[in-house]
Amino acid sequence: MCGIVGYIGNRQAAPILLDGLGKLEYRGYDSAGIAVYNEGKIDMIKSKGRLKVLSELTHDGATLEGTMGIGHTRWATHGSPSDVNAHPHFNADKSIVVVHNGIIENYLKLKKKLKKRDYQFVSETDTEVIAHLLDYYYQGNPLEAITKIMHRMEGSYALGIMFKDHPDQLYAVRKDSPLIVGHTDGGCIIASDVPAVLRYTRDVYFIENEEIVRMTADSMEFFNVDEEPIVKEPVRIEWDVNAAEKGGYEHFMLKEMYEQPKAVMDTFSPRIKGSQIEIEELGMTEEEIRKLRKIMIVACGSASHVGHTSKYILEGLARLPVEVDMASEFRYRNPILDEQTLVVVISQSGETADTLAALRQAKKMGARVLGIVNVVGSSIAREADNVMYTWAGPEIAVATTKAYSAQLTAMYLLAMKFGKARGLLREDELQEMLGSLKALPAQIEMILSNREKIQKFANRYLAARDIFFIGRGIDHAISMEGSLKLKEISYIHSEAYAAGELKHGTISLVEEGTLVAAVLTQKELYKKMISNMEEVRTRGAFVMAVTVEGNTEVEKAADYVIYIPETNKYFTNSLAIIPLQLFAYYIAVGRGCDVDKPRNLAKSVTVE
Amino acid sequence: MCGIVGYIGNRQAAPILLDGLGKLEYRGYDSAGIAVYNEGKIDMIKSKGRLKVLSELTHDGATLEGTMGIGHTRWATHGSPSDVNAHPHFNADKSIVVVHNGIIENYLKLKKKLKKRDYQFVSETDTEVIAHLLDYYYQGNPLEAITKIMHRMEGSYALGIMFKDHPDQLYAVRKDSPLIVGHTDGGCIIASDVPAVLRYTRDVYFIENEEIVRMTADSMEFFNVDEEPIVKEPVRIEWDVNAAEKGGYEHFMLKEMYEQPKAVMDTFSPRIKGSQIEIEELGMTEEEIRKLRKIMIVACGSASHVGHTSKYILEGLARLPVEVDMASEFRYRNPILDEQTLVVVISQSGETADTLAALRQAKKMGARVLGIVNVVGSSIAREADNVMYTWAGPEIAVATTKAYSAQLTAMYLLAMKFGKARGLLREDELQEMLGSLKALPAQIEMILSNREKIQKFANRYLAARDIFFIGRGIDHAISMEGSLKLKEISYIHSEAYAAGELKHGTISLVEEGTLVAAVLTQKELYKKMISNMEEVRTRGAFVMAVTVEGNTEVEKAADYVIYIPETNKYFTNSLAIIPLQLFAYYIAVGRGCDVDKPRNLAKSVTVE
Repeated sequence: MCGIVGYIGNRQAAPILLDGLGKLEYRGYDSAGIAVYNEGKIDMIKSKGRLKVLSELTHDGATLEGTMGIGHTRWATHGSPSDVNAHPHFNADKSIVVVHNGIIENYLKLKKKLKKRDYQFVSETDTEVIAHLLDYYYQGNPLEAITKIMHRMEGSYALGIMFKDHPDQLYAVRKDSPLIVGHTDGGCIIASDVPAVLRYTRDVYFIENEEIVRMTADSMEFFNVDEEPIVKEPVRIEWDVNAAEKGGYEHFMLKEMYEQPKAVMDTFSPRIKGSQIEIEELGMTEEEIRKLRKIMIVACGSASHVGHTSKYILEGLARLPVEVDMASEFRYRNPILDEQTLVVVISQSGETADTLAALRQAKKMGARVLGIVNVVGSSIAREADNVMYTWAGPEIAVATTKAYSAQLTAMYLLAMKFGKARGLLREDELQEMLGSLKALPAQIEMILSNREKIQKFANRYLAARDIFFIGRGIDHAISMEGSLKLKEISYIHSEAYAAGELKHGTISLVEEGTLVAAVLTQKELYKKMISNMEEVRTRGAFVMAVTVEGNTEVEKAADYVIYIPETNKYFTNSLAIIPLQLFAYYIAVGRGCDVDKPRNLAKSVTVE
Repeated sequence: MCGIVGYIGNRQAAPILLDGLGKLEYRGYDSAGIAVYNEGKIDMIKSKGRLKVLSELTHDGATLEGTMGIGHTRWATHGSPSDVNAHPHFNADKSIVVVHNGIIENYLKLKKKLKKRDYQFVSETDTEVIAHLLDYYYQGNPLEAITKIMHRMEGSYALGIMFKDHPDQLYAVRKDSPLIVGHTDGGCIIASDVPAVLRYTRDVYFIENEEIVRMTADSMEFFNVDEEPIVKEPVRIEWDVNAAEKGGYEHFMLKEMYEQPKAVMDTFSPRIKGSQIEIEELGMTEEEIRKLRKIMIVACGSASHVGHTSKYILEGLARLPVEVDMASEFRYRNPILDEQTLVVVISQSGETADTLAALRQAKKMGARVLGIVNVVGSSIAREADNVMYTWAGPEIAVATTKAYSAQLTAMYLLAMKFGKARGLLREDELQEMLGSLKALPAQIEMILSNREKIQKFANRYLAARDIFFIGRGIDHAISMEGSLKLKEISYIHSEAYAAGELKHGTISLVEEGTLVAAVLTQKELYKKMISNMEEVRTRGAFVMAVTVEGNTEVEKAADYVIYIPETNKYFTNSLAIIPLQLFAYYIAVGRGCDVDKPRNLAKSVTVE
């Protein structure tokens, strides 16, 4: 979720680091920092804000001497964006310095252990733990220290590491966070992503999980976690620089769709401890959860569709009445709420003006506000009483995909937690749901792998003028998001309708050839949905169905069927939305639309 | 709301009566009856059901002899549809017989008075009161008795009356319910509407308020309420028979739009007693109203838009949390409700399958159900715990207009009643609101009278493919209805959006020339709305605004402005919807659509 660059060679390091970070800034941009080895000491400079600030402070790197260094551009996870939380991070005597992408899931446990041994922490980050942990295990052999900490850390990491005692060696290591390394003229360069190195080399080594690299100005050695040397082959990068920033994908949107399994996993895994859900940041005791009388979910756009989905789940699992409101409406409607109301505001950017205003209104009226936010340290994150972060990483495409999926995941956790606390969700049910939750990332990946089939189908509907999405219950909420995705990027006028409501008016728009996308993921509603599909089909509609494997019954009422794997009935949105995202994407691509930056739209709507 | 026919002359009356009633059957059809004077007595035959039943019983009238008679086809108001409640109604010794259109508002008071004098009532109707009242005042002079009861009755009425003692005279009288009379070959005919007489004459007299007609086989005299003779001129009817059933309007929809002032007035006036709102049929004490914790409004289509509007009003006036749900969704979502929840179901026909199923579900879950229904004795009316009727009369056009307006009115009354009972609406505020409510019919009429201006504008947009309706708060609810009207009958893909939500996605559909209809009736939101209008206008939209007189500020952000008169902020839907109905209507007419029977739609959706 952040960007890493490292360099060792015979040129000045700082300008190369800043240049590389500039290429990665799209991955996160709340703070940045670089550390350079220079004549027996490590110089470090860090700053909150865009990279530009750092460049100005160092005259584009010119003021920092030295030929080995590491740099980082940050997307905050643990600890708000600030100078002190920015990377790199030192050990106490500044002899070891680290930059880090990823999340150390057991960092609290490690921190506690280190504190007992008198380690002092200056930042709130999980990364600082790594620096001190290296210090603790370091006895003159960097490789040994690195493998030792690898055995002790849980979570994901890509690291760049320098040891003052070894001024001719730069180290890098990865697990579950990308890292590449390449030779340049008279040096080696590491980076978390291809764009940062393309200017220097096109032959790169992709570091695999639990592999370590030791670089000097003119050599590069690879080791496994047992310190045994391994042999790797370089890969030739053919992408152009522009494509590189998109990780080889044609658009950020597609890249981000592919990042959904990770976004979902990163959002649930730190909150499942053993076999229980722990959401420390919720800041509510079980007693307080039981006292709640109402939940209001306030959001805009796709986030409000997460709200509609959550209404079914929260009411189903916790029997708590849920009201979903558009943020722009909430403010001015004089909503009815009190201290026993929990207001949940959902926003990717944490800066959505309407949502922020709603938050302030809710607080003023005495309600407790929980923010579900993707950008750490954003306004909503700061002003909400409590924040539950989605760990989707920076989202660049205007049409949200992975942030949406992460928001859904956060709400699943919340609903299960509430259901359990209120004594309505049995332990065995919870365990079954957690099993389903953990299976989602692989299931999403599976659906994504079938993208070509959907592309082919989408290509038949490039000229469509009107498309309708229908569903009942949760499937209606899924339909809303499927419709909005299509609208946003393809400019086709699509509309989502509760399947049973269509006949009360809108069905008059259905004519020969109209495409109707029907979502059927709720077993008890299959029959009703099939009737609704037949209603539109007899009026000439072409019906595309998204349903769960095994529901072959649907084929008699549909012209085209997309199957998704089985999951818990409350989690189906996470799977059913994937083909609809792909459908919207390929329609828009086929129509030649600017997918990542649709007309009239902004990523983070900071005006009302 | 019913149909009246009367005949006196030298031909057999019954076949003429049945023929005339057949022409009026579109006005109501739950029961019918005729009474014919024959050799010293009055024969009467009545039957529940369509007119066909009555025709079969009498062999198209052949079995009923006599040359003077009155007939009636009923649309139930007081008392469910049944043989006994069908008209005509007798006095005790069957010497006076009456058919009646309209509502006698003080009938309960009159009934009480008559009962004290030992009058026995066989039906539940208000009409039977008229027969007994005539009996009470009749002393040999029909005209005198008629004027006496006119002074004592409140409400609306068109009456056909026969006195056994005066077998050569037929009487008719009207107040606020239409009535016409004409000469035929060898006789006179009366009717509540033109179609019933066209076969016999094209020269008719329109009876004005509080005028009385006395007819014989070859004469016709007019009197005022002081029994003074007056002179009237006949009017030549040029309509064809088909147009006649539509009262001269091109479509039922237009006719029904023009009936809105009356529908609104008929719905509120019987429930305003003195200066207070009395809704006896609500069946709830003020104590019970105060105990309510939640209201759920469940409906389909336009009725659900009444629900959305009501949410603002009920929450605003009574601070009762309101949840609005589509009936097709409510059933399957396992809604959260209890004995302190009032479920309000709204349906014109009272037979909407989804709504009926929702009602049953709500009752099963222990909630109290109030039905807001137009058709007396319909399934929802029978099964709800309490029924509050809208007095809109039969609605023929599939796209609802007058029933919608009447539903709004019913909900206004309910909200004011609840606000008062819960101590949140002050007496002076209530009185001000009642003043505004009473002004609505004339204001609606005023807007309708400007229809040509809207027709002209609509003609510019006949080729539109996509139209958006935006508004905030109540104006969002108005937008939903405006959009649905257009969709239903013109097949243009229109969509309503909360104005502040548009920028979170759907605004990408706005391009050069897209028509956006903006509704601004809420003073405190004018500025926000103008910003939203500018947002779409800078993207090329053509903005039509519907706003309140005096808000000239709007002109800077709109290309076309329709002004509606000022009213209470909670009642604006009743006025703002009128131009939007007209707009939808004229677009559909201009596009050559079958306005009254749009494709794929049914009037009363009795399937799920």
